Amino acid sequence: MSPRPKTIAEIDTPAVLIDLDRAERNIARAQAAADAAGVKLRPHIKTHKLPYFAKKQVEAGAAGITCQKIGEAEVMADAGLTDIFLPYNIIGKAKLERLLALHRRVTLSVTADSATTVAGLAEMFTDASRPLKVLIECDTGAARCGVQTAEQALTLAKQIASAPGLTFGGLMTYPAAGAPEAAETWLADARDLLAKEGFACETVTSGGTPDMWRRQDAAIVTEYRPGTYIYMDRYQVEKGAASADDCALTVLATVVSAPTPTRAILDSGSKALSSDLLGLPDHGELVGIPGARVTALSEEHGKVELSGGARLAVGDRVRVLPDHACVVTNLFDEVYLISGDRVVDILPVAARGKLS
Amino acid sequence: MSPRPKTIAEIDTPAVLIDLDRAERNIARAQAAADAAGVKLRPHIKTHKLPYFAKKQVEAGAAGITCQKIGEAEVMADAGLTDIFLPYNIIGKAKLERLLALHRRVTLSVTADSATTVAGLAEMFTDASRPLKVLIECDTGAARCGVQTAEQALTLAKQIASAPGLTFGGLMTYPAAGAPEAAETWLADARDLLAKEGFACETVTSGGTPDMWRRQDAAIVTEYRPGTYIYMDRYQVEKGAASADDCALTVLATVVSAPTPTRAILDSGSKALSSDLLGLPDHGELVGIPGARVTALSEEHGKVELSGGARLAVGDRVRVLPDHACVVTNLFDEVYLISGDRVVDILPVAARGKLS
Repeated sequence: MSPRPKTIAEIDTPAVLIDLDRAERNIARAQAAADAAGVKLRPHIKTHKLPYFAKKQVEAGAAGITCQKIGEAEVMADAGLTDIFLPYNIIGKAKLERLLALHRRVTLSVTADSATTVAGLAEMFTDASRPLKVLIECDTGAARCGVQTAEQALTLAKQIASAPGLTFGGLMTYPAAGAPEAAETWLADARDLLAKEGFACETVTSGGTPDMWRRQDAAIVTEYRPGTYIYMDRYQVEKGAASADDCALTVLATVVSAPTPTRAILDSGSKALSSDLLGLPDHGELVGIPGARVTALSEEHGKVELSGGARLAVGDRVRVLPDHACVVTNLFDEVYLISGDRVVDILPVAARGKLS
Repeated sequence: MSPRPKTIAEIDTPAVLIDLDRAERNIARAQAAADAAGVKLRPHIKTHKLPYFAKKQVEAGAAGITCQKIGEAEVMADAGLTDIFLPYNIIGKAKLERLLALHRRVTLSVTADSATTVAGLAEMFTDASRPLKVLIECDTGAARCGVQTAEQALTLAKQIASAPGLTFGGLMTYPAAGAPEAAETWLADARDLLAKEGFACETVTSGGTPDMWRRQDAAIVTEYRPGTYIYMDRYQVEKGAASADDCALTVLATVVSAPTPTRAILDSGSKALSSDLLGLPDHGELVGIPGARVTALSEEHGKVELSGGARLAVGDRVRVLPDHACVVTNLFDEVYLISGDRVVDILPVAARGKLS
């Protein structure tokens, strides 16, 4: 075993570096914006997958955390997080049993968008003294999960209310990127229809970092679930949600080949950066090296094309700003917390690879 | 903990299923084709990342195995594999020390494409009684790593030969997809130039499953490093290297939402299937359900569009044939070996996530 690195220069590559100062600034800034807008913040842990940052987010004022899979929620509950929202249709006996066990030890809420999901929850959760809070997922334009109409939401709310072990918690959406107004209109209509029938929406929750700075969300949204804001990435910079200086996650890589003056190959391919483009034209840029772009990935090689006089030599160490931070953390067993050039800590990515 | 599943019906989703009968048939078929062509087979373990299958490949007649990163080779050496080729430029003291330790316990060979890489190897490997075999990586058209000309290969061969702890082993390429003739011409020219200068190429090695059935490769190539052939995938079917019935890897998934008659959402997104498209128009197809295509992925959701009367309901369990098998196995901590509907074994993906 190599000795524990004290500085970035001692870290073997590829490695994920998290700039702690930037991450903490991003946490504080988002919490302040949510507080100013009168919206609860419930960060999605998918971006970092670390109890360390989940606790920081709650300490900063978050109402709780959001996880996408039960396995992630189990890791966070084990680490002491106490209020977890799982915006996912939980299907099947094996998962419902795990969900029930989780419900017994933390404040838990989930979503449903079908009678089948609600029926499964109602069968497993029967304790009227400790009902499970169920929100209705609404398809407000993203064309993923969710009921299609306010009337369908009403039907599900009635089904939830009729189950002794469940309680209706409100509405949840993941809005289409760049179209928050449509989501707000949709949710307001559904909330009003439900109110007329006697169903108050305690929570109306939306997500997505790109649109998180919109204050007018507060008119309908009571809670917001951003994930990427803690690390930010190239996609968020492209969408105007962050500046390059806000980006806390980079991948430390080594140039292993420089076959031509305008081509360098990194030891970081799709196994390190993922293939997610999120609509961007290439896979990443090299911090501090204008004219260097990661233009192609195979599993273990990242191809950098150099222009404008940029040069790289075999053995050079570089930092890649990836398109999508969340999927990168899922590919590494550990991340390095850094401050300047100093390694502050090395953390196992405790909720990595939790697929069920 | 749930009891260990005995049949596919008892497996929680998402999960990777490996059809053992198909995988073994694929191993045997490729070995027979290599034997018939007089070419050594040295399978790339990146596809399965399992000592179990690496051993099966060697038992079937493979000359050894190929790994891409030292961490993979360490896992395979620990499991008893004894002949490992690492076609990668190993750079930096930390990795070179691990490489030396590995060289002391298995038959090892590596590649280099620059004077810097060779110099690093020459400095770490100094034992003339047990020299490290170094092949020269050649860019025969894929525009990734590799020397650009036969003359550059000759220069590197001289540098390798002048280092007491290294020995020149031949030429290596990863050819451009669909252009094996260009690679063959390139390699033949380099081999001839090297021969004239007194450097015999003991090994000329190429890779890539799509072109592995070309017998004429044998004219120049002495060893072949296919990876995907053991599992096959949609990309290989598209390239004509396999039929759908050869595909051994599928992802077992559950329909968690069916918001419209033509849309279903799986519990398997890019964290299960990866975002690799390999040029295909969508992310996967559902086995046995014509007209069902995985058309979009977010991290935990796979969007299926249904046409031609195909229908899916919440709770349905399906098997996704992914575009790219290798990247899927890197996302799961374990895989299920199946025979028909029966679970034969559950194996940890021992070389998963080995990035350095």
